[in-house]
Amino acid sequence: MKLPASTEWLLHCATTLAQLEPGATASAAQLADYYDLPAPYLAKQLQALVRAGVLAATTGPRGGFQLGRPAADITLLHIVKAVDGASSPYQCKEIRQQGRGALPQEECRRTCVLAEKMAEAHNAWRRSLAGVSLADILASLPPSAPARTRSRLAGIPRSTQPR
Amino acid sequence: MKLPASTEWLLHCATTLAQLEPGATASAAQLADYYDLPAPYLAKQLQALVRAGVLAATTGPRGGFQLGRPAADITLLHIVKAVDGASSPYQCKEIRQQGRGALPQEECRRTCVLAEKMAEAHNAWRRSLAGVSLADILASLPPSAPARTRSRLAGIPRSTQPR
Ligand code: FES
Ligand code: FES
Repeated sequence: MKLPASTEWLLHCATTLAQLEPGATASAAQLADYYDLPAPYLAKQLQALVRAGVLAATTGPRGGFQLGRPAADITLLHIVKAVDGASSPYQCKEIRQQGRGALPQEECRRTCVLAEKMAEAHNAWRRSLAGVSLADILASLPPSAPARTRSRLAGIPRSTQPR
Repeated sequence: MKLPASTEWLLHCATTLAQLEPGATASAAQLADYYDLPAPYLAKQLQALVRAGVLAATTGPRGGFQLGRPAADITLLHIVKAVDGASSPYQCKEIRQQGRGALPQEECRRTCVLAEKMAEAHNAWRRSLAGVSLADILASLPPSAPARTRSRLAGIPRSTQPR
């Protein structure tokens, strides 16, 4: 059971964008350089966050990515969901209905208790992630972090450089 | 993020074994027929539960699998863990320490707050599964279920039949 490696990228990029001045943006190339990530693949993943409303993208020479709504309204679940769908890792194939032990159909109207308990665990995971916003994450950073983040980002060219 | 398909098999097989009379066993071939599963692969997975102490295996003509400890002491987490290790689906590669945004080492002695929150969510999932025992699952079945399970199992030959 694994989440895509890009989950870490996007959690960090969203945290970085949450530290910009209102209205400021960062390009995919800047974020890729900031974390030493493959720019084209990162750009694709950032677009998934745009589709989810977590980020907004603007075009033009000063264009780039910014938060799509206030940091307090973006939870870790929103981000993880945009990358992986956050569907349950458990797949019930209704094996109670197959083989020599197959249960009569009338006993299978309700969800199997095992599938139900696995779903409850997944909901506990989701609830935990839904309880943490980007604003909470920012509040846990050292007070000097946002200014440093902004100045380092400003030092990176906005468009991809040959490397 | 996916758990192996055999997770469902083992949750159900353990639930089935929990319904046997004390001391009784069922063979891998019987369980495979009971749920219409591939016997050799199921046998391998059942051995993982034996290694985890969830099941005990006996040999000989009446040999087979039984619970390795009381149903009240076997949780869904024990079973899921035996199949997949139940390690966190989130992998932190310490991207905060790489690229142009790399944090100074002295700010990285504590776990990254994002990795910490992802770990908390995984712990919530684990706690949820650890809170449900096979005894709880049995208690939720219709009272007539164990007798039916036993009689159906008894009707299946103990050794693999050519199919
Ligand atoms: S039938 Fe799928 S978990 Fe029980
Ligand atoms: S460095 Fe890995 S989650 Fe922050």
